[in-house]
Amino acid sequence: MATDPATAHAHPPVLPENHASLIVQGRDSTGIVAAVSAVLSGHGANIVSLDQYSDDPHQGGAFYQRTVFSLDNLRAVLPALERDLADELSAGFDLDFTLRDMSVPKRVAVFASKEDHCLLDLLWRHRRGQLPVTITMVVSNHTDTAEEVRAFGVPFVHVPTMELGKSAAEAEHLRLLRGNVDFVVLARYMQILSGDFIARLGVPIINIHHSFLPAFIGSGPYAKAKERGVKLVGATAHYVTEDLDEGPIIEQDVVRVTHADTLADIRRRGADVERTVLARAVRWHSEDRVIRSDNSTIVFA
Amino acid sequence: MATDPATAHAHPPVLPENHASLIVQGRDSTGIVAAVSAVLSGHGANIVSLDQYSDDPHQGGAFYQRTVFSLDNLRAVLPALERDLADELSAGFDLDFTLRDMSVPKRVAVFASKEDHCLLDLLWRHRRGQLPVTITMVVSNHTDTAEEVRAFGVPFVHVPTMELGKSAAEAEHLRLLRGNVDFVVLARYMQILSGDFIARLGVPIINIHHSFLPAFIGSGPYAKAKERGVKLVGATAHYVTEDLDEGPIIEQDVVRVTHADTLADIRRRGADVERTVLARAVRWHSEDRVIRSDNSTIVFA
Amino acid sequence: MATDPATAHAHPPVLPENHASLIVQGRDSTGIVAAVSAVLSGHGANIVSLDQYSDDPHQGGAFYQRTVFSLDNLRAVLPALERDLADELSAGFDLDFTLRDMSVPKRVAVFASKEDHCLLDLLWRHRRGQLPVTITMVVSNHTDTAEEVRAFGVPFVHVPTMELGKSAAEAEHLRLLRGNVDFVVLARYMQILSGDFIARLGVPIINIHHSFLPAFIGSGPYAKAKERGVKLVGATAHYVTEDLDEGPIIEQDVVRVTHADTLADIRRRGADVERTVLARAVRWHSEDRVIRSDNSTIVFA
Amino acid sequence: MATDPATAHAHPPVLPENHASLIVQGRDSTGIVAAVSAVLSGHGANIVSLDQYSDDPHQGGAFYQRTVFSLDNLRAVLPALERDLADELSAGFDLDFTLRDMSVPKRVAVFASKEDHCLLDLLWRHRRGQLPVTITMVVSNHTDTAEEVRAFGVPFVHVPTMELGKSAAEAEHLRLLRGNVDFVVLARYMQILSGDFIARLGVPIINIHHSFLPAFIGSGPYAKAKERGVKLVGATAHYVTEDLDEGPIIEQDVVRVTHADTLADIRRRGADVERTVLARAVRWHSEDRVIRSDNSTIVFA
Repeated sequence: MATDPATAHAHPPVLPENHASLIVQGRDSTGIVAAVSAVLSGHGANIVSLDQYSDDPHQGGAFYQRTVFSLDNLRAVLPALERDLADELSAGFDLDFTLRDMSVPKRVAVFASKEDHCLLDLLWRHRRGQLPVTITMVVSNHTDTAEEVRAFGVPFVHVPTMELGKSAAEAEHLRLLRGNVDFVVLARYMQILSGDFIARLGVPIINIHHSFLPAFIGSGPYAKAKERGVKLVGATAHYVTEDLDEGPIIEQDVVRVTHADTLADIRRRGADVERTVLARAVRWHSEDRVIRSDNSTIVFA
Repeated sequence: MATDPATAHAHPPVLPENHASLIVQGRDSTGIVAAVSAVLSGHGANIVSLDQYSDDPHQGGAFYQRTVFSLDNLRAVLPALERDLADELSAGFDLDFTLRDMSVPKRVAVFASKEDHCLLDLLWRHRRGQLPVTITMVVSNHTDTAEEVRAFGVPFVHVPTMELGKSAAEAEHLRLLRGNVDFVVLARYMQILSGDFIARLGVPIINIHHSFLPAFIGSGPYAKAKERGVKLVGATAHYVTEDLDEGPIIEQDVVRVTHADTLADIRRRGADVERTVLARAVRWHSEDRVIRSDNSTIVFA
Repeated sequence: MATDPATAHAHPPVLPENHASLIVQGRDSTGIVAAVSAVLSGHGANIVSLDQYSDDPHQGGAFYQRTVFSLDNLRAVLPALERDLADELSAGFDLDFTLRDMSVPKRVAVFASKEDHCLLDLLWRHRRGQLPVTITMVVSNHTDTAEEVRAFGVPFVHVPTMELGKSAAEAEHLRLLRGNVDFVVLARYMQILSGDFIARLGVPIINIHHSFLPAFIGSGPYAKAKERGVKLVGATAHYVTEDLDEGPIIEQDVVRVTHADTLADIRRRGADVERTVLARAVRWHSEDRVIRSDNSTIVFA
Repeated sequence: MATDPATAHAHPPVLPENHASLIVQGRDSTGIVAAVSAVLSGHGANIVSLDQYSDDPHQGGAFYQRTVFSLDNLRAVLPALERDLADELSAGFDLDFTLRDMSVPKRVAVFASKEDHCLLDLLWRHRRGQLPVTITMVVSNHTDTAEEVRAFGVPFVHVPTMELGKSAAEAEHLRLLRGNVDFVVLARYMQILSGDFIARLGVPIINIHHSFLPAFIGSGPYAKAKERGVKLVGATAHYVTEDLDEGPIIEQDVVRVTHADTLADIRRRGADVERTVLARAVRWHSEDRVIRSDNSTIVFA
């Protein structure tokens, strides 16, 4: 019997049936946790995990809560639960919330260029069942990784940005993505996205920058790090905004380098950090563990 | 004007007025969070932070929750709140709880021998206001650190275990400690405590072991690490039980060593980890962030 | 034009022409560095890097030196240089040495079972030119990874140890390996090798153990780590000896875990450390950076 | 018998008799190691450790070598050895060297302001024998730490920069330091030194900056880090040049922070990194392990 290499050792991601995540965010006040959990209890939901954070508990600052709960026949009950939460939270509180059925994986498109380490690492983690997403497609301005991506059973779409020009390429990207993805990951995609594209796409975009931001913003961060003589290099996963490398940081990490490391050595060490940091950020985003707040993030990891 | 070195740059530890911690622990079931937060809301308490963990949410395993809340006139209201919690949690649930006024620092005695790095680090952190405890005394089987301890404004008591013999020394320890301390820290105290002493003392004891447990149990862990040729050495803070180095682990960390490190180098590198790990464990314990569960700990750090 | 996925983004490993490594090891005494570098200078060699270590410089302990040098027409000159070194080092010193042309990659066979994370990571790194070796074959007691390995252009050989029995399987292994490889890597190969096999194979074997040795020797280390409640889990790359998990340690690292991590989470976190630690050990061994000394290693990383 | 707290548990730093360090630095060429080691051997010196680095071995770049050797009657022989090295290295090579008797500790002045964590850590480590220096004095623009410093047996000199004005204060600093110290450590000294002062002082100055440079240059780096929402904060030890926070980096490290950390928490976590990083830099400088090269450092740690 022929084995299909794309699925031979694929494990389905853990997408627990009848589990939902509830993110509540807004102005802090007395009784939010009680009100939310009373609504959940009232529907027979069992709280599986609850993380809460208030940025200034003494003076009524901002409030953030992530709750994961299990509930029989979740899909049937969700609309009623959503209505009750809306009633409760709009009545006495100044709060927004999002409720999501966790058994439905988020759909993601991964953008890559020539470098394959972040891309392959995501595909491979997904195959092992460690990323609860559906990778709908890989988009690249180069063809180097096409066959390898397809060997994972994932569609590969080549959009030659140089030939098409930036404007036509972005139009093609929008055509591919809109309605098809819940977020986008730039896995060392070496093209800058226009503010217009980001706005029109309308879903979160996660980028991996190969420096410990805000050090070494812009291109060539490893060369700049070598030039400056730093003793650690890092990587930063962040949400993309119109301001290059200035978006909310999701995760960062570093690795030690020495005077003896060549630029190639630094790139090699840095690549290990990049893929790890990006994978964490993608997993956390997939599991609703990251809440954006102005230009920062609350991460319930 | 003469400055008192003991208090010249002392900062009072942050002990928030009108804040309490509530630890709930027991068998998981639906509605615990709602029930607890309803009682708190009913008394007008505002939840400042809430951490919750269930070890097997799908099958009714163990449940752990740490809640910090603020409440006007806490001290006056606490007894009534405690009664209501007891009623609520004993009625429908199989749960234990402890409620503590966080404005009252826990009282701790620190035991040390000749090595001063962990002891001085605790005294210094305490003076900077980073450890919300009252250090009631330092007890040592040597006199080396006496004047330095007293310069921090902390009583130093010499109990010469060799001269007294173990049994008399432990009796003296019990006489000093019982009723006077809420927990004990062994800051590189190089004497083994008897099971009888631990039982009769009746308060938690935190020890720092200079290895990454369970590697290198017993004496001389750095020499054993050098002998085995490990590339990292570590330290472990744990609650003391009758079984040497087998108690519940609170915190661990490691540091890199190489073939070129002598035993003195390893001790020096390890000492930095020891003091950091012990300080974390003591702070977490002081803030009710550590819940013991069989031979493990839940740490809401 | 059809692209070959096995080589589409393959980079040749950096194998510098006309560079050699010289490892000198033995009893320390005055003048070794001078004697060795005089022989090298006499042949016109330029020392590119030199690392030296004496384990007890004050009392004539052991001496270790790694020198990398460049020399025009290295291949032609090497025999004469080797003779001169032998004369010099056998005359006045009690030293062994090995001299190796670094433009010739070491040949390695990788053994794997079902888990693919260490195996794929080595294949990826090799394709990127980061491991200066020739991967002559992958040997496995399972067929899960066959197609993926072959997509890298590397032969995959299935040796079904269960069906054959241990003795016949080891005979088959010896038939495949002897004369064909310079070292063997066990990339989460879940079979224990007999002392007889190790002896008859006669080349170094590197294993990755999924714990911070000497903690959790033997099988199921992650389950044991969860049971013991440790706050860090680790991985250890070591040379294989007859004593299971007792061989000389090459490299170790750890990652933080918490009470909330399930066994699956711990395995996932640990897998990232395993592949990183193994890759470092393999690269260092490939570049002659690891010197075995009794049950320890000197690593000039 | 009265114990003197300043010396009760003081250990003399390890300053090996008859050991010298030799730093060679300049243009790379064939035969340097051989030439240097031949001169050393010729005087009967035994090389204890040798580290060498060439920044571009293939094209005649820069060469750096640190050698530690032992030699009987070192003090008597040193002048002749220095002459021979000068002859040898000036003849065929384009190299500078410095030779130093390691049994003579470097003299250091430590500058501090109100924060005591870096200062005390250096004093503790020195007392434990872990810093091979003589701390000749502590200079501060505040008096907070005076008694504590003097309890270590170290002179404390108050130079009130605000009252005196910058120019008069720097003149006083020069009067205190010139001829008396081999280097200066700024242990969280919160005053900017003028370029003129740095030039006239004429000895290296090591500063600890409380960020992972080049991120967050200038004042208030922790507040900037909190504002930017980074997930790690760090510290950087560097040589002071006229350009604020731009000098050659000696050592850096980082620690993880989260959204839940207040500015006070970040400062507390950062302080632990600051004191560790500074202590490493001071020890390495004391042992001649740091070579400056343009705006970078070669660190043979």
